[in-house]
Amino acid sequence: MEFDLIAKYFTRATPDAVLGVGDDCALLAPSPGMQLAVSSDMLLEGRHFSPQDSPAGIGHKSLAVNLSDLAAMGAAPRWATLSIALPEVDDAWLTAFSRGFFRMADLHGIELVGGDTTRGALTLSITVIGEVPPGQALRRDGAQAGDDIWVSGVLGSAAMALAYRQGRLFMEQIDAAKVLPALYLPMPRVELGIALRGIAHSAIDISDGLLGDLGHILERSQVGAKSIGARLEFSALPTLPVVQSYLHEAVARDCVLAGGDDYELCFTAPQAKRDLVLTAANDAGVSVSRIGHISAKPGLTVTDADGQSLIIEHTGYDHFAA
Amino acid sequence: MEFDLIAKYFTRATPDAVLGVGDDCALLAPSPGMQLAVSSDMLLEGRHFSPQDSPAGIGHKSLAVNLSDLAAMGAAPRWATLSIALPEVDDAWLTAFSRGFFRMADLHGIELVGGDTTRGALTLSITVIGEVPPGQALRRDGAQAGDDIWVSGVLGSAAMALAYRQGRLFMEQIDAAKVLPALYLPMPRVELGIALRGIAHSAIDISDGLLGDLGHILERSQVGAKSIGARLEFSALPTLPVVQSYLHEAVARDCVLAGGDDYELCFTAPQAKRDLVLTAANDAGVSVSRIGHISAKPGLTVTDADGQSLIIEHTGYDHFAA
Repeated sequence: MEFDLIAKYFTRATPDAVLGVGDDCALLAPSPGMQLAVSSDMLLEGRHFSPQDSPAGIGHKSLAVNLSDLAAMGAAPRWATLSIALPEVDDAWLTAFSRGFFRMADLHGIELVGGDTTRGALTLSITVIGEVPPGQALRRDGAQAGDDIWVSGVLGSAAMALAYRQGRLFMEQIDAAKVLPALYLPMPRVELGIALRGIAHSAIDISDGLLGDLGHILERSQVGAKSIGARLEFSALPTLPVVQSYLHEAVARDCVLAGGDDYELCFTAPQAKRDLVLTAANDAGVSVSRIGHISAKPGLTVTDADGQSLIIEHTGYDHFAA
Repeated sequence: MEFDLIAKYFTRATPDAVLGVGDDCALLAPSPGMQLAVSSDMLLEGRHFSPQDSPAGIGHKSLAVNLSDLAAMGAAPRWATLSIALPEVDDAWLTAFSRGFFRMADLHGIELVGGDTTRGALTLSITVIGEVPPGQALRRDGAQAGDDIWVSGVLGSAAMALAYRQGRLFMEQIDAAKVLPALYLPMPRVELGIALRGIAHSAIDISDGLLGDLGHILERSQVGAKSIGARLEFSALPTLPVVQSYLHEAVARDCVLAGGDDYELCFTAPQAKRDLVLTAANDAGVSVSRIGHISAKPGLTVTDADGQSLIIEHTGYDHFAA
């Protein structure tokens, strides 16, 4: 099935593997005593990226969104496989795609050890494998009432960039340039995830929007029939200044709370560990913001600066209903 | 991205995982001291299966072809991820597909621990992870001059079944029933692969046809500039009787030597271990046939019963040139 694409574009030395591309399987020697974190994502042209997107950017982002899952687990990236369906062998496209892919791989020390190529509509399917010490993974199900809620980076930029690219929002080029990287070149918070081991009670990456993803933490952290809830303060949510300057209030709120594609980490940690969280973020070179807290009362409330409720969501709804 | 399909059709208890479906990553505890064998395959409707195919059969085969890669490595199956693009949520299709998938999973003790679902043309992307003791994996690069060449099961049945299904070959229904399982319900030779640890020098699964896949062993087992070759005796190749009764000689030869989709193991082992090979096959409940030997002389020759050359192939050609 491989029509020699793998050898030409996707085979590099894999010093971190016992055996890399070229056999029926890759052979890997996991570090003694570590657990494996494994995640798979599939990206389709026309749905997750557009035919006009830069192939190097697609290479970057396809691996970045997978690395973001490892980050949300606090796992250190080790190995990846890439399965790719292509309508034709386009040398320029493949060269640029693999350059973007490997640049992201090198940045986080992950090795491409296998995969598959076939002819078909452009489809990318990636599996990443990372390592984390037993008991130290940042799971979705560990949030506790009283925890602070934190997010990394800024929110809403990717949603704004998408609206701009689709012609639904006018922006000056100099301002568009501030949000476009969030959409096309997201940076997975791998170092932050690792630094939060032993500090955060729970974590998730914000791929579907803050409210939806925080909702997943609440659902999974429920103990028996005992639900927990979240209280967010809208003014504490980190955004770029352009969000306020270009968007009506309600639209801005939607971008920030439910925009998705941000690939930041949302995590909870005990109040007693605020200093440790800030130190971890500083060491990882990422800004973090404390945006609210986990409460014993179910539901998800967002309040304005005066303490008035802006939005109340009940967890457990289907975020993907058509 | 999951639109709740994962919870409904693909979430079962995963006692063999620390954490299964439902978080950013699955968490797995590999067995101490074992190496991991990892393989990924992508299957597209219209290319690897047809819209008319039974969804339970597609579920079976999609996992079986991946397990076949673990078998060819001598690895014991442990965990799998499944990413699936679907044009719509078809309850009957998904129910049948997941039944076929999990039946195959249960047969080989592999657990589905993660994946992704999205909307798009029907596409299946699976990654399997198995375990093998260090130094005992059956690689493609270990063949040595003097080794016997063996195959499991019978060859050519899947190619014949495909020709029948596509209307290119007439067969009585009772005879078609003998070859159709090879195409739709291939059985990966997992137990045989494990039993051949420490016995076989090299192995590959026959997904692209015997000659092409044996060619991969020859290419990879080359030591420096020193090539090795293979001599096969055509009459020793195992086939079902229907192959001879329905096909002209040249067509039969093509089906058997290059038909593909057989998912049998082709492996080499020293002559001194013939008894051990037969015992391993017997223990695994699979028939094996000794079909030729590895020679110090490069090239791939197939001879008839009189020792006349039928076919001479030179290794290193592109099996996938259009």
